[in-house]
Amino acid sequence: MRARDNHQANYCRGAKIHYLEELIHPRSVAIVGASANPTAKAYDYLKGMIEFDFPGSLYPINPKASEILGLKAFPSVRDVPGTIDYAISCIPAEAAPQLVEDCASKGAKVLQLYTAGFSETGAEEGRRLEEELVRRARRNGMRIIGPNCIGVHYPEGRLAFGRAKFSLDSGEVGCLVQSGGHAWTLLSQGSLRGIRFSKVFSFGNASDLNESDFLEYLAEDPKTRVITAYIEGVKSGQRFLEAIAKAAAAKPVIIVKGGKTEAGMRAVASHTGSLAGSDLIWDTILRQTGAIRVYNIDELIDTILPFVYFPPMKGHNVGIVGGGGGASVQAADDCETKGLIVPHLAPEIRQRLEEFTPLAGSSLRNPVDAVEIWSAQNFLHILEIIAAWDKIDFLLAHAIIELTAQWKGKSVLEGMIDSLLATKGRLTKPMAVILQSFGTPKGLAMLYDIQKRFVEARIPVYPTTARAANAISKFVAYHNRIAST
Amino acid sequence: MRARDNHQANYCRGAKIHYLEELIHPRSVAIVGASANPTAKAYDYLKGMIEFDFPGSLYPINPKASEILGLKAFPSVRDVPGTIDYAISCIPAEAAPQLVEDCASKGAKVLQLYTAGFSETGAEEGRRLEEELVRRARRNGMRIIGPNCIGVHYPEGRLAFGRAKFSLDSGEVGCLVQSGGHAWTLLSQGSLRGIRFSKVFSFGNASDLNESDFLEYLAEDPKTRVITAYIEGVKSGQRFLEAIAKAAAAKPVIIVKGGKTEAGMRAVASHTGSLAGSDLIWDTILRQTGAIRVYNIDELIDTILPFVYFPPMKGHNVGIVGGGGGASVQAADDCETKGLIVPHLAPEIRQRLEEFTPLAGSSLRNPVDAVEIWSAQNFLHILEIIAAWDKIDFLLAHAIIELTAQWKGKSVLEGMIDSLLATKGRLTKPMAVILQSFGTPKGLAMLYDIQKRFVEARIPVYPTTARAANAISKFVAYHNRIAST
Repeated sequence: MRARDNHQANYCRGAKIHYLEELIHPRSVAIVGASANPTAKAYDYLKGMIEFDFPGSLYPINPKASEILGLKAFPSVRDVPGTIDYAISCIPAEAAPQLVEDCASKGAKVLQLYTAGFSETGAEEGRRLEEELVRRARRNGMRIIGPNCIGVHYPEGRLAFGRAKFSLDSGEVGCLVQSGGHAWTLLSQGSLRGIRFSKVFSFGNASDLNESDFLEYLAEDPKTRVITAYIEGVKSGQRFLEAIAKAAAAKPVIIVKGGKTEAGMRAVASHTGSLAGSDLIWDTILRQTGAIRVYNIDELIDTILPFVYFPPMKGHNVGIVGGGGGASVQAADDCETKGLIVPHLAPEIRQRLEEFTPLAGSSLRNPVDAVEIWSAQNFLHILEIIAAWDKIDFLLAHAIIELTAQWKGKSVLEGMIDSLLATKGRLTKPMAVILQSFGTPKGLAMLYDIQKRFVEARIPVYPTTARAANAISKFVAYHNRIAST
Repeated sequence: MRARDNHQANYCRGAKIHYLEELIHPRSVAIVGASANPTAKAYDYLKGMIEFDFPGSLYPINPKASEILGLKAFPSVRDVPGTIDYAISCIPAEAAPQLVEDCASKGAKVLQLYTAGFSETGAEEGRRLEEELVRRARRNGMRIIGPNCIGVHYPEGRLAFGRAKFSLDSGEVGCLVQSGGHAWTLLSQGSLRGIRFSKVFSFGNASDLNESDFLEYLAEDPKTRVITAYIEGVKSGQRFLEAIAKAAAAKPVIIVKGGKTEAGMRAVASHTGSLAGSDLIWDTILRQTGAIRVYNIDELIDTILPFVYFPPMKGHNVGIVGGGGGASVQAADDCETKGLIVPHLAPEIRQRLEEFTPLAGSSLRNPVDAVEIWSAQNFLHILEIIAAWDKIDFLLAHAIIELTAQWKGKSVLEGMIDSLLATKGRLTKPMAVILQSFGTPKGLAMLYDIQKRFVEARIPVYPTTARAANAISKFVAYHNRIAST
């Protein structure tokens, strides 16, 4: 069943539906300023919607073209026959207020503006234009997404905000992100790391629909299991407080707050015209509501992974298996620095490992440095022994791609990868893998391929033990918190 | 002039020369346990020395081979005609004490042992073997490097510790590193980031020659301008205190201390048999002596870069130029979180930028988000204007490879790269570049190529603004400290 039919069916059953639900299920979309120039963003929107197989009508609007990308183009919105539910603007800011009227005349429920040049410029003219935009939308019962944003990516509903190089599959992670660049980065990088998204809202200046609207929606959305956010400022503090408290009580909310320093706050004002607000207050709010604070998109992606791949987990005890004495010391330090515990291997576990491991060049404590005996069979055996130990809650397996290939041979590296993949269904505890590359072309190509195989096997991959430990410690803290409340 | 002749000339001039200087200028090297099996480490040593064009005699020692890699092999060290200055052991630990006697009989001055299975095993037998090894070496006036280490990489002297995939050029960074894996990682990754090394000492269990020997040597070595270290424990606290104080007074010392947590200390004991020591004491010592503490090899490499590429710099003020509003906010937050200052652009500077920059989609504060006008010419012009401003001490230019290529077109990305390279000799302030990749195969390949071009132009490259800001803030703090003492 198509997402839209689903949506209609819900309506018919009389379920209470969030107002955003109707907005993101348009039957027709107009792309205003559509262009046949492949470097134009308006071309990108149209091409993205076509490639995404949008099931409704698509109307390119351009006064100078009769056809764009095989679709009939119209000189203006008013020339479109029938209604327009959803409009995307790529025309200059000055023309935006009139566009609201044009769209309203065709019954549009929402106008999303990629168009920039509003309040974020800091100029009086931009501020005035944005106010006028919202005033006219309100008068016409229309909602605004943006301006100065890339809009909505919604795989199930086939809404695209451009030609995607990332996965178009639908998933369980919802996202509200004030920066279009960050939205694109999160989707692209997250996609390679195995994250799939339910809905991604990029909302720029948040002139009308704002962070609280999207947060409330995602909190209610049954398709969204984890909420992630990049927020630069809030429009109404009280409403946001309630929205985030409610969202964080319903599901994990992982948030990056942009603009925590003086210069960051200035950049925020200049980016989306937002008031960043005191970082201390943000910290307090996020802590009190139980939202998980992270500090950049990399850390956001890292932190999503256990929420997607691991079962709920309250224990801090990690078993570390990998190659290299220095790397093992680093892994142990990284884990305990982040509040995880690396328990000393019990004598009976050590004994079981000693049965097939030489002492020289290995370390049979925890971390287990087993590079001397790496082979598909041995490595898997070690992982099974450690995972079966009741003092361990989860495993980290680490390797440096080029180091292993150069020192131990490519077949040892491959054996190790195969054995890690073979753990699927054989380990009683969750496992994350840390794969590092020196950055050589061969190493990077191998990293990409290997990571792909792990993603397919639903095993999360991190680039450093520090980043894995940081993410998993936040995950464990979350589950301890909700267990105690 | 060959390094060895240089060394001899110094001797003849009667200059006081560190005892290590003679040890690392052998006329002949024996590789004990040499093997024709390419996966054996002994093969790797021999092949590495051959590829490195070692100017002296090379003697593979193997009782079962008459020739290895085109070189005449000898059944034992004692069968080698003439003297052996330097011996490398890859034979089992049990045979090591006898090897000392054999090497001594040939006049060897130093024995480096890749061989593991000594005190680091925690077993009584290993401890006894290591003591015996040192006792015999002392009795024969020989020095030991290791055991359980990969030894010495010394480009000028053509000493190799394996087939290098990294640059073999000599440079200004000296290194003592207790972990062989970390040594290899530092050389490999550092090489790609443009770092060249004078001498790298990997010393494992430090049974005889230890961290203080190498630190003292590098402090005196005129070829070493920056000292870097990875240390797991010290053999004599008092001596080390004096050595590090002297070294840090002479040149920048950047150090990773392995084993800062309980599990890390346990891993250290198991890796090199070292006593890690209280982390608080380490922190105090490093702070008091002015050594720069970092926490992993990535951060070590990051921090080396400004010491190699930037002139001494005491100012904290950074001008940030790049693409993307969210990325600009992140860059500003990253810099100020690390104690750098991102000053508000003066009106006259802003005015100069406004002359050729549209307001919509740009931000002409600091950070300057100029993606809308990226072209080789414009970007270079912006960088020149910002660099010329007297409130700025250095520049950071940032871009996400795939984002720029997908949103603005590959030619815009190329224009930006070209303009950054064209800054060489045209900017009055130092600049670092931050290049991020989503991790797509194309993006990674481009990142590798672009980074190579920057390294050739002697412009440091970082993967994130956070890492650049962290490294440069440590560099600035160093120069403020030495100016105030």
